[in-house]
Amino acid sequence: MSTFGQYFRVTTYGESHCRSVGCIVDGCPPGMELTEDDIQPQMTRRRPGQSNITTPRNEKDRVLIQSGTEFGVTLGTPIGMMVMNEDQRPKDYGNSTMDLFPRPSHADWTYLEKYGVKASSGGGRSSARETIGRVAAGAIAEKYLRLAYGVEIVAFTSSVGAVHLTNPAFLSLVNSIDRKTVDNFLPVRCPDDAANKKMVDYISDFRDRNDSIGGTVTCVIRNVPSGLGEPCFDKLEAMLAHAMLSIPATKGFEIGSGFAGCEVPGSTHNDPFVSASASHSQLPPGVAESGAAKNNIPRPKLTTKTNYSGGIQGGISNGAPIYFRVAFKPAATIGQEQTTATYDGDSEGVLAAKGRHDPCVVPRAIPIVEAMAALVVMDALLAQQSRHTAKSLLPPLKQTIPSAKPAGNGVSENVENAQ
Amino acid sequence: MSTFGQYFRVTTYGESHCRSVGCIVDGCPPGMELTEDDIQPQMTRRRPGQSNITTPRNEKDRVLIQSGTEFGVTLGTPIGMMVMNEDQRPKDYGNSTMDLFPRPSHADWTYLEKYGVKASSGGGRSSARETIGRVAAGAIAEKYLRLAYGVEIVAFTSSVGAVHLTNPAFLSLVNSIDRKTVDNFLPVRCPDDAANKKMVDYISDFRDRNDSIGGTVTCVIRNVPSGLGEPCFDKLEAMLAHAMLSIPATKGFEIGSGFAGCEVPGSTHNDPFVSASASHSQLPPGVAESGAAKNNIPRPKLTTKTNYSGGIQGGISNGAPIYFRVAFKPAATIGQEQTTATYDGDSEGVLAAKGRHDPCVVPRAIPIVEAMAALVVMDALLAQQSRHTAKSLLPPLKQTIPSAKPAGNGVSENVENAQ
Amino acid sequence: MSTFGQYFRVTTYGESHCRSVGCIVDGCPPGMELTEDDIQPQMTRRRPGQSNITTPRNEKDRVLIQSGTEFGVTLGTPIGMMVMNEDQRPKDYGNSTMDLFPRPSHADWTYLEKYGVKASSGGGRSSARETIGRVAAGAIAEKYLRLAYGVEIVAFTSSVGAVHLTNPAFLSLVNSIDRKTVDNFLPVRCPDDAANKKMVDYISDFRDRNDSIGGTVTCVIRNVPSGLGEPCFDKLEAMLAHAMLSIPATKGFEIGSGFAGCEVPGSTHNDPFVSASASHSQLPPGVAESGAAKNNIPRPKLTTKTNYSGGIQGGISNGAPIYFRVAFKPAATIGQEQTTATYDGDSEGVLAAKGRHDPCVVPRAIPIVEAMAALVVMDALLAQQSRHTAKSLLPPLKQTIPSAKPAGNGVSENVENAQ
Amino acid sequence: MSTFGQYFRVTTYGESHCRSVGCIVDGCPPGMELTEDDIQPQMTRRRPGQSNITTPRNEKDRVLIQSGTEFGVTLGTPIGMMVMNEDQRPKDYGNSTMDLFPRPSHADWTYLEKYGVKASSGGGRSSARETIGRVAAGAIAEKYLRLAYGVEIVAFTSSVGAVHLTNPAFLSLVNSIDRKTVDNFLPVRCPDDAANKKMVDYISDFRDRNDSIGGTVTCVIRNVPSGLGEPCFDKLEAMLAHAMLSIPATKGFEIGSGFAGCEVPGSTHNDPFVSASASHSQLPPGVAESGAAKNNIPRPKLTTKTNYSGGIQGGISNGAPIYFRVAFKPAATIGQEQTTATYDGDSEGVLAAKGRHDPCVVPRAIPIVEAMAALVVMDALLAQQSRHTAKSLLPPLKQTIPSAKPAGNGVSENVENAQ
Repeated sequence: MSTFGQYFRVTTYGESHCRSVGCIVDGCPPGMELTEDDIQPQMTRRRPGQSNITTPRNEKDRVLIQSGTEFGVTLGTPIGMMVMNEDQRPKDYGNSTMDLFPRPSHADWTYLEKYGVKASSGGGRSSARETIGRVAAGAIAEKYLRLAYGVEIVAFTSSVGAVHLTNPAFLSLVNSIDRKTVDNFLPVRCPDDAANKKMVDYISDFRDRNDSIGGTVTCVIRNVPSGLGEPCFDKLEAMLAHAMLSIPATKGFEIGSGFAGCEVPGSTHNDPFVSASASHSQLPPGVAESGAAKNNIPRPKLTTKTNYSGGIQGGISNGAPIYFRVAFKPAATIGQEQTTATYDGDSEGVLAAKGRHDPCVVPRAIPIVEAMAALVVMDALLAQQSRHTAKSLLPPLKQTIPSAKPAGNGVSENVENAQ
Repeated sequence: MSTFGQYFRVTTYGESHCRSVGCIVDGCPPGMELTEDDIQPQMTRRRPGQSNITTPRNEKDRVLIQSGTEFGVTLGTPIGMMVMNEDQRPKDYGNSTMDLFPRPSHADWTYLEKYGVKASSGGGRSSARETIGRVAAGAIAEKYLRLAYGVEIVAFTSSVGAVHLTNPAFLSLVNSIDRKTVDNFLPVRCPDDAANKKMVDYISDFRDRNDSIGGTVTCVIRNVPSGLGEPCFDKLEAMLAHAMLSIPATKGFEIGSGFAGCEVPGSTHNDPFVSASASHSQLPPGVAESGAAKNNIPRPKLTTKTNYSGGIQGGISNGAPIYFRVAFKPAATIGQEQTTATYDGDSEGVLAAKGRHDPCVVPRAIPIVEAMAALVVMDALLAQQSRHTAKSLLPPLKQTIPSAKPAGNGVSENVENAQ
Repeated sequence: MSTFGQYFRVTTYGESHCRSVGCIVDGCPPGMELTEDDIQPQMTRRRPGQSNITTPRNEKDRVLIQSGTEFGVTLGTPIGMMVMNEDQRPKDYGNSTMDLFPRPSHADWTYLEKYGVKASSGGGRSSARETIGRVAAGAIAEKYLRLAYGVEIVAFTSSVGAVHLTNPAFLSLVNSIDRKTVDNFLPVRCPDDAANKKMVDYISDFRDRNDSIGGTVTCVIRNVPSGLGEPCFDKLEAMLAHAMLSIPATKGFEIGSGFAGCEVPGSTHNDPFVSASASHSQLPPGVAESGAAKNNIPRPKLTTKTNYSGGIQGGISNGAPIYFRVAFKPAATIGQEQTTATYDGDSEGVLAAKGRHDPCVVPRAIPIVEAMAALVVMDALLAQQSRHTAKSLLPPLKQTIPSAKPAGNGVSENVENAQ
Repeated sequence: MSTFGQYFRVTTYGESHCRSVGCIVDGCPPGMELTEDDIQPQMTRRRPGQSNITTPRNEKDRVLIQSGTEFGVTLGTPIGMMVMNEDQRPKDYGNSTMDLFPRPSHADWTYLEKYGVKASSGGGRSSARETIGRVAAGAIAEKYLRLAYGVEIVAFTSSVGAVHLTNPAFLSLVNSIDRKTVDNFLPVRCPDDAANKKMVDYISDFRDRNDSIGGTVTCVIRNVPSGLGEPCFDKLEAMLAHAMLSIPATKGFEIGSGFAGCEVPGSTHNDPFVSASASHSQLPPGVAESGAAKNNIPRPKLTTKTNYSGGIQGGISNGAPIYFRVAFKPAATIGQEQTTATYDGDSEGVLAAKGRHDPCVVPRAIPIVEAMAALVVMDALLAQQSRHTAKSLLPPLKQTIPSAKPAGNGVSENVENAQ
């Protein structure tokens, strides 16, 4: 369905050539200051035409809040948002030979198999315009997360084709990168001078050959409270994977050590716990000014020395930075001729393309990844806040965690339930 | 929450030391023959103690159907299923020094952060015993999918640590591997003589060093009808990613070409369409005998020449084999001493482990991956069947797909909506 | 939340003074002809200003489809719909003494308790304008139900204050009333000359006294297929009750014999089965032309001689007409002075009203009742179609219903499970 | 589906002749003391055989907690619960003539229409045994509500056939009745000497005639916090109506003034606000000792002088007692012969019954009504706690409610948005 989230619930609508695209956000906390100005920046970061290596259209994509706020404050009621489509005329199909061929690796054919109706734009909802509603909704979630907990969500390009951001740079980015820095590396958004430069050349080369290339986006989420994620099916990483693989053109997701972690021995891969006070000499400014800090909501007492876990253990956030990587395939639409079959399977032919196409969708995907990450964390946070508040009204239990110092040598048995 | 699926809805319960573990399956089609004998085989494949490189316990794990069937036929009502726990005594904590330390990279600490109550087994629901309910439910879904469409779901070990099943072997496995063959390669379940042998040695080495190692599972799903997957948030790959990342110890998911596909030019990566009749000279036996074939439900007219897409385009199945890979980290519980901090963060110490532990969880994860894949496909199938039936009762529309042969050279324009 | 339905899912947004109100309909079957002309009639029937006994405003309430259709045909993707608000200026509160008093029996105070933010219109989403989205969505569901099964949904005013439509008239209406006839009795919409006339006078009297009065709406749904309704929590009557009590100003719901049925002995109240062919000599025209008839979907073999059950038994439709009654309280806003307390509880005072108010909301509620009924039946139908199709692909079972004639005297034992 | 609730989610399974019946409760707050002793009392109140005017079976119905607690404390994980069925043998049908006739007004026929499979007990899930899971889950919700807010839920018989509890008695019961008092009036549970005695005789008369009779249950919920209920579709009364109409044999629901309120002028029906401190000189003991009181969660400042609203305004609780009435039809199974048709519609015949049947299900329905009420309030409470906590972390807004005394005569304008 076109709905995401249980507590902070986003429902989107719209395809390429209809009147508008948009969404309804249900479950936004009341009493938050919110205007279009909070939302537009991410809309603008998402839109095409930001440089000569992205698609050259220049859309306006102005978001209009329809409901759910008054005098710039959220009411707690559903927030309707809309962006007009500039080209609202559905193409009359049957007139062009293009309609004979489903585009290879595009959604044209599977949409027809699914719905039995052919939209003028092929796979109507598979258009990247569908992501506008997500970005708008994500901007609201992000604002709440920042105000309440100082959460920061930053995504950046970590590879384009065979050009990768190398590891020492990567590790420090997890702890420090911000969005402004990322945008200093427009149009590719890889926040490393050497890698970024290589990527620009690399993409240009594909553009010149009327070809396309994929890449990966890395996203970090800092200052997430511990305890988020719902066992057992809605583990936090499961929701993130769901969210990311719902973005058009994605092919993979890995969290923390990811696929590479499969090759690291457990004795190295395990993240030892250390006292949180030892590792954070002071709170980051965003956290210190957050509602949680002002309400004396305690910070976790522990953190981990290493972070192979990527901030999540047993499906639940542990307070350390969450980071994950998303794979994007090369864009299916290319300017080269492609031999393929007609819809009815009766004949083969050559499909050629006109016009200019985006040789690499990765840079524009960055605000979409951030938005989906915000939606996941927001939903998990509301679930946990409900539980935590519910528990706080119960009579206190006797102590459940032993706090005595370990006897003798401090060595304890460790019996895993391996069932 | 502990519920998965909208149409075929599975709700699980149970942790390590409670009375039983189990699940309720709601939405199973009525009128299907079903007994415990359909379910037990996967339960048995999942359970520990299958060889000397998995954990040496020998559990019974006998599943008992509580409701929803009569005389061996499903009624359409919820199917309750239960497996008794053999060790039902919660450990009285506070008596052992073990309770002082949350195990590194385990769920002990995050569960306590989330719930504020410490279960005797640490992260109670994070136990692998939680997966029993999934496997039981998955077995029901699988049976339906096989009867109705001849769907086959087969997972196998594709890497252990640095030992990988190499590519030529891999590609043929996607089209042909079956479960019986996989189990010929017990205990590792890598269906390739050379790789399997290397993996056995590799795991043994980790076992001998009281260490652990991760690996990857590849899963293929054949004979999936086209049209499954719900735009835009519940794309089929998004649901698969969600399902897989909800399995304990997983760190990554990739579908089709996956992360490697990011480095392939679009002109190569695109999967050209070909007439399906050209590529399938005959239906596989399971499909030919399926309910769909007997009811003359048409097969897709097209398929793809290559399958970088992994059987899914625009979030919707295209009828080609679906295949994906799941990353499992090294098991967190190891027999080595680990320096870590106490729950209260006040002191550090050394946590040691007693007993024997599973040096590699990958082989036992295989039926769990298959079960979760079955749940995803089943849910998507019921959604699509509802839509398709609903559409079939509407007055027919005038033709929406041009079937005329392309004029001239068969070259058509290809204008992607790049918004 | 602001979402209704699992399969045909409606999400609404909007309050009185925001930019627009509207909804997103997700799950509409693809391939159905649909334009604003299918939706506007019910919008118009809902809107105020239809006579001098309803509120004198004259709104336009033109619905605009935003997405989900192309060339007048549904695509299967979400259908966004919107109606502009004419007065979009939120009232600046604090300037008027009105803001001191929550209106008695209105939502002003409870909305403030819930959200902690006061909307300029008091209980923002409690405004009757919220129902616009419901009516728009319901019109789509209705069209599908009519095309696919010949379903007819007709509501009418069955009482206003103490003036009731009496019983002989009522019973024949269940089987025959249509919407056109109901609208012949504007403005009250009670399709009985005598009762209607009395009601007009009755309401006028309340209007003249600046008071208000309630009433009941009866709704009938004919030609519903058997088998709709999901045990055990989502019985068809439970979903109808949910839907009806979600309409503003409702206080009660009863189905079939309802509260009066509590006083009828079981021996009378039980509805004996009779052969359906005996009771329906021919199919109604709408049914005969429906997609179901054209696809040879069988009609139920049985019907009931009486219909105390109201067309639903065990929570599942039996194919007989469904009928139910909904209670509406007198409108809370009246032109009389009312003594009440200020928001802060510190003082009492007298709240007076300016302007003209609707003395009886019942007539305008009729299209809303119809819309909600359509949403319930549509959702239940899609659930059942999914199940039925799923079952149809399974191998046939041996016969499960004995068809032999009863032996001897045809008397059988009747052992109820009374647990 | 067999799931109720979004935040406190109950999933039930089981029919009459399967191995067991039970449920999974997901979302129970962690850290609450809970054992079978908290649940069994309501199970016992529900079970048959409590007197000679209910069905004479004597079941054990012992509930067993399967998971989700340890050492008598909830873990926050799903709570599995089970009650064994004593008679687990499905009846082999086809052997008895009974199988030829669907019982009139029973679920036998509609279940067959829905599922296409005939359970040995007819409408398998329509059995009253299905309600066991509800009662078990409700007992958990109730315990939380009592501990956290001092919520009291008490249902009683308010009419049997034509014998009604009259109004003066009724009004005082809303404010004071408790469960112990109700059970002093076993077996009918009408807490009024005169009415109760009449009802006993009335039911006995129906029993002697092998007939059955219906009645109504009234339920009151006291000490509900204000602010519960989710606009617009999940208004608190809509959820209560849904819950109540999902109980077998129910035909109607009304809240507060209900159907009678339709005939009361608005000027009388409106509930004026008064200062809460004026009307409650002191907190009830349960409230004073609740977690909410101990955590200084403020009580509403206002209450209403009258309570036609039934404690809910605009779909949201206002803190006043919630009360509603539920209609139960006469039990369909009676000892009299009934002329009806065979399943296949080919012949008519006479269906007779053996054995003893419950002449009036109303008294046993009381714990079921209470349980469903608890589930609704619990779910709404968790939703509101999540929202309220989320809001509490936002920066404070400038004052939104004017608190100045009304100027002059305290008369304010009252302009309703009548759209």
